[in-house]
Amino acid sequence: MSLPRIAVDAMGGDEGVRVMIEGAALARRRHDRFKFLLVGEETRIAQALENHPNLKAASEILHAPDVVSGDEKPTQALRRAKTTSMGLAIDAVKRGQAGVAVSAGNTGALMAMAKLALRTMPGIDRPALAALLPTLGEHDLVMLDLGANTECDTRNLIQFAIMGAAYARIVHGLDAPSVRLLNIGSEETKGTDNLRDAASALKAAAEQLAFSFDGFIEADKISRGNVDVVVTDGFSGNIALKAMEGAARFVADLLRRSFSSSLRSKFGFLISKPATELLKHHLDPNNHNGAVFLGLNGLVVKSHGGASALGVAHAVAVAARLLEENLTERIAADLTRVGAEAFRSSGRNTKAQPQAAGAEQEVSGEGA
Amino acid sequence: MSLPRIAVDAMGGDEGVRVMIEGAALARRRHDRFKFLLVGEETRIAQALENHPNLKAASEILHAPDVVSGDEKPTQALRRAKTTSMGLAIDAVKRGQAGVAVSAGNTGALMAMAKLALRTMPGIDRPALAALLPTLGEHDLVMLDLGANTECDTRNLIQFAIMGAAYARIVHGLDAPSVRLLNIGSEETKGTDNLRDAASALKAAAEQLAFSFDGFIEADKISRGNVDVVVTDGFSGNIALKAMEGAARFVADLLRRSFSSSLRSKFGFLISKPATELLKHHLDPNNHNGAVFLGLNGLVVKSHGGASALGVAHAVAVAARLLEENLTERIAADLTRVGAEAFRSSGRNTKAQPQAAGAEQEVSGEGA
Repeated sequence: MSLPRIAVDAMGGDEGVRVMIEGAALARRRHDRFKFLLVGEETRIAQALENHPNLKAASEILHAPDVVSGDEKPTQALRRAKTTSMGLAIDAVKRGQAGVAVSAGNTGALMAMAKLALRTMPGIDRPALAALLPTLGEHDLVMLDLGANTECDTRNLIQFAIMGAAYARIVHGLDAPSVRLLNIGSEETKGTDNLRDAASALKAAAEQLAFSFDGFIEADKISRGNVDVVVTDGFSGNIALKAMEGAARFVADLLRRSFSSSLRSKFGFLISKPATELLKHHLDPNNHNGAVFLGLNGLVVKSHGGASALGVAHAVAVAARLLEENLTERIAADLTRVGAEAFRSSGRNTKAQPQAAGAEQEVSGEGA
Repeated sequence: MSLPRIAVDAMGGDEGVRVMIEGAALARRRHDRFKFLLVGEETRIAQALENHPNLKAASEILHAPDVVSGDEKPTQALRRAKTTSMGLAIDAVKRGQAGVAVSAGNTGALMAMAKLALRTMPGIDRPALAALLPTLGEHDLVMLDLGANTECDTRNLIQFAIMGAAYARIVHGLDAPSVRLLNIGSEETKGTDNLRDAASALKAAAEQLAFSFDGFIEADKISRGNVDVVVTDGFSGNIALKAMEGAARFVADLLRRSFSSSLRSKFGFLISKPATELLKHHLDPNNHNGAVFLGLNGLVVKSHGGASALGVAHAVAVAARLLEENLTERIAADLTRVGAEAFRSSGRNTKAQPQAAGAEQEVSGEGA
């Protein structure tokens, strides 16, 4: 059975058309049931497709005269939703011309456009960017928000927990995932008011929510494999994710340096190459690329701006998998089942912290 | 020439007296000019000293009947400044009975007690916890705040930049250190209002401040070696630091696992042991233990709560080095020279975000 089409914003990302098309071609080579709607400047896409006849045969081009730039404010980008490759890729999902949109562009703009076009699910005030991260345990962990919402209030955090747990139930088949809030200490007195309030609310409602809320987790414990969902605001989540990526690369660089510091080490390095290759595969962020916006009435996947073609292919594969698994419908059903609506913000008079001023601020994060 | 005494809070830290005394003994074995004031429960310290005659000969015990616990609120701890080992260690610095205090206890309480007893320097509203972190470059980088101030306003960030630059000038002999603010993107539009305001102010004042303000830095670039000072609020700083520590440990664990996955790899691992030992040494947080509170009229060093005896010894060595280098006087002189006073908060009517409510919140972070 063939899948609904995957809309690819061919213009986003640091490298632009070439890498996006190469990534889509790579994904298509692995999974021949994928079909694509390639959105962007028609002539450039057609040119890039000449090198990938296999992809060309499975693709339609949707011309977009305009591009959202990396440093553009989301409010500016919103005005050009009907002309930009990002806006039109999302619009294709809204109209049912594609089942999912993949973009490597400006995260804040992507979030704003996706939210406006697709709207949030009942019970959800703001969508969150979620990714699967490697652990030492049996399966990856779900972490959110990774940069879509720079500042979050108590209710946002609670809703992220509910969505993250639903995601973990679906992708890992867990009955009652273990959920924790990222904080700077594990004691109840630690952190901001928002974090402590969210922890109290989640503790009180845990039974109803069909997951195990296990309190706070510190950033050095994220990858140990004993938690299924880590919830945080987009600022901290982005800092944590990038700090982990940077540290892994730092270690790999040190390792290379120390291995080449003596002949004996060099020999050892050669002999243990299969092991270090495995390590490299495990640590390369391209192999974990592809974060999904949870809480929207439609699928949008964010590819890292700096991802290689391999990374783009991974994000496309993530998009296809979520499409196959009917993620949107299943998350919505899960939210209804646990009564997420009850946790929805009741307007501007809530006790929680005021939102940052205006949509610009809310969505100015840079993504996973 | 012998140094002023080092006051050690012997009761702080996850392991308590044994590890603190063992760490001090280790430091003393390496540097025989160190002298100590060991603060805490007299009988337990005396008992622990029996195994370390070398340290015993260089130490005096100051009895403290009480201990600050790990989950105690700073405001509670403040009331017991005159009876707790932490409070009395700081008091010894205030009275000139010691040149520096080292504690592995509750960071929030340590910050509150140190601030009350020693007061902040002219031009500084709140002290910040700073540490030297390893990089791929020629020298370590200065990062602050690492957990003393959970929420920071624009002026706090500006003051941290000024203090961090002063610290880098002193420890690395740099004329104009490169200073950056930690953010979730490098573009000027990214991040919170506080971060953008701090960046504008630092850009405007950079010449006067005798450092090079080079904008924002993302968390994956911290260790690359092309920045001397990374400035952030205590929440994000703590998240970033711990995420990096956790990722480094994750990689080391993966490496061990992959090396032992085949006989060939095992052989390679044995042969390359010197290289991996070097790596282990470079990555062990114990080898980078010891963060200093910058901005106080007196030296206080925070040892990681979970540090081993080796880690404690490292923190003691950091304390001794800062003492030898007259850090307090030199930071104060540097702040005067650059006119830091002009950046001091002019009371509650500032444009900046309000502080978190009450001292409890301000200092509830858990440290490096």
